[in-house]
Amino acid sequence: MTLPIRPDIIELEDSKIVDVWQHGLARPDLVMLAVGEGDLPTPKFIADAAYQAMLAGETFYTHKRGIPDLRRALARYHRRHWGVEIADERIAVTSAGMNAMMVAMEIAIDAGDNMVAVSPVWPNIFATVEIMGGEVRMIALDNNGSGWHLDLDKLFAAVDDRTRVIYAASPGNPTGWTMSEEELRTVIDFCREKNIWFIADEVYNRLVYDRVVAPSALQFARPTDPMLVVNSFSKTWAMTGWRLGWMVMPLGMAGMLDKLLEFNTSGGQAFLQRAAIAALDQGEDFVADQVTRYRASRDLVTQRLGGMRRVKLTRSEASMYLMFQVEGEPDSHKLALRLVDEVGVGLAPGVAFGEGGEGYLRLCFAASARKLTQAMDRLEPALS
Amino acid sequence: MTLPIRPDIIELEDSKIVDVWQHGLARPDLVMLAVGEGDLPTPKFIADAAYQAMLAGETFYTHKRGIPDLRRALARYHRRHWGVEIADERIAVTSAGMNAMMVAMEIAIDAGDNMVAVSPVWPNIFATVEIMGGEVRMIALDNNGSGWHLDLDKLFAAVDDRTRVIYAASPGNPTGWTMSEEELRTVIDFCREKNIWFIADEVYNRLVYDRVVAPSALQFARPTDPMLVVNSFSKTWAMTGWRLGWMVMPLGMAGMLDKLLEFNTSGGQAFLQRAAIAALDQGEDFVADQVTRYRASRDLVTQRLGGMRRVKLTRSEASMYLMFQVEGEPDSHKLALRLVDEVGVGLAPGVAFGEGGEGYLRLCFAASARKLTQAMDRLEPALS
Repeated sequence: MTLPIRPDIIELEDSKIVDVWQHGLARPDLVMLAVGEGDLPTPKFIADAAYQAMLAGETFYTHKRGIPDLRRALARYHRRHWGVEIADERIAVTSAGMNAMMVAMEIAIDAGDNMVAVSPVWPNIFATVEIMGGEVRMIALDNNGSGWHLDLDKLFAAVDDRTRVIYAASPGNPTGWTMSEEELRTVIDFCREKNIWFIADEVYNRLVYDRVVAPSALQFARPTDPMLVVNSFSKTWAMTGWRLGWMVMPLGMAGMLDKLLEFNTSGGQAFLQRAAIAALDQGEDFVADQVTRYRASRDLVTQRLGGMRRVKLTRSEASMYLMFQVEGEPDSHKLALRLVDEVGVGLAPGVAFGEGGEGYLRLCFAASARKLTQAMDRLEPALS
Repeated sequence: MTLPIRPDIIELEDSKIVDVWQHGLARPDLVMLAVGEGDLPTPKFIADAAYQAMLAGETFYTHKRGIPDLRRALARYHRRHWGVEIADERIAVTSAGMNAMMVAMEIAIDAGDNMVAVSPVWPNIFATVEIMGGEVRMIALDNNGSGWHLDLDKLFAAVDDRTRVIYAASPGNPTGWTMSEEELRTVIDFCREKNIWFIADEVYNRLVYDRVVAPSALQFARPTDPMLVVNSFSKTWAMTGWRLGWMVMPLGMAGMLDKLLEFNTSGGQAFLQRAAIAALDQGEDFVADQVTRYRASRDLVTQRLGGMRRVKLTRSEASMYLMFQVEGEPDSHKLALRLVDEVGVGLAPGVAFGEGGEGYLRLCFAASARKLTQAMDRLEPALS
């Protein structure tokens, strides 16, 4: 007898990134660049803020949408970097950006509905839609050789009467593609007109190398627009293991989010939220140093890969990723597994990121120069 | 234009417990006994374990189903208290017991399915079913004056071909009702036979006053039975604010839970899981002290309420709650609001807990003797 599990759940696919990671476990000397995470632990001042709050007794249930001090700190943060005024009642603190995405789909997707997503994209996003019984339609970015471009007509043409969401991550994972102000404005206007959600994933909006911050959808939307902006503390402040994110929503939804967060996780940890305040208010030096490190890493990898004969590299001005094709290697999953076996380097196969991803490998350059140099030395003979 | 929000989400009801809590905010001298939470902060040795792990750099992504050391500690814990052997692959660490419930419903409930639940019961449980587009059927416990009793025939008769889950919390919130070994065995056999889930919520299984631990469904089930046992660190170790729980599932589901937890929250915090290990392995003195305190609190409240003329009290041998009726007061919500206004005591209205709850008030006795005495002094004139 098989267990009475929903078909939608049985059919959830394993991530092919995780697959490469697991394949690499057998090889202890692997240089792993397949996972989207930096190599620095969380700064101590952030950990200290959490511990002080624990000792101060902030170990009880707290506000479901996040402690008011953190929501105010987030409002200051948005004002400082994007010049936008976000009312406190539009902010919800979540248990990770991932949790914000899951809650967003609970709001938007009924069984049979669909979401139109710009791809290649982090595959976990699809899964949240599938858990709710919905379907994902991917519109692939075009790569004209110098970078990724979105055809807005193709995006809008994919919307039908069961479409409830347009999703775009900007800057994007795995591409580093960043929406222009004009593109943001056009998508927001379209979604307002159609009264469908625009979910703007801005998790990488501080990891940018050709400007100070990536543009935010919040700069171009009205407070009543059907838009959810998802963000996370993970990448910007080296807090991947903290599971802290936030969402900015339209006016009038605070009570609903109180309930939804209550029923998903009963809200977050007050003492971790104190650490998040420390990150927002005292973390700018760390963020600046990290961007400097990552830019140097990006340059190192760009230069080395650029010298390999079979590699066709796409520039990246944001995120912590580079995408590249290898001549004569159309199957990215096979190639990723072979590079683990043959040269001991773990890269994420582009096919894991949906339409437009096959044929590419994603390299996470949020690593030390030593580690990246070792990876390049190993890749060179295989890719030249 | 209204926002494109799913009707199931718009229809989620506000908790009437939260309603009383909010009503009480205007009264600063309120003695609040409506919330299910103790009054002690988390023990320092638990906080220290978390901080040490942060400093040791455990601030990265970790195993989605929980760190192996915590899963092993949970296996030891189940062996020590219930004499059961739980394979590591059957354990998943979750972001709170609430999160385990939400994930359980993602596994079990398709739109149009139903869950049969023993009530009165904590209302958040209903909401997780409704988020998935399902329906809850409540089977009320009978109160024969001396305590709560379950009519198994009524429970089983409510199951139809769209029933995917039978849910029972034992010990129960708000009743303290505890399933007998025979009842557990019968429900587990029934669910195996019908191939529907039994979700056993055992969050209160260490807060018992007439024995050492409440019986666990794990003692009476096979490792392949369609059963999910949900638990939490919140009540047993005074960790409500930590959002840590766990689930024991049938064999063969580990990979699926890895995926589901990845997509719900991307898993928990490694450094908080170190604190959970400290709680499990070094927390027994704290648990014993807490039970001693709560038993004395229960006795104090039982004795004082027993002396009030209009009060009809139902004994509680488990959980942190007492339920009582007040003569001439059939509307528990109205009465709860009036007691806030007139005597400054916050109690949870029984109607919040579904069928069988109306006409009762729930009092949380996990408080100091001083606070409880103050509440009793205030209630006495109103209820005598």
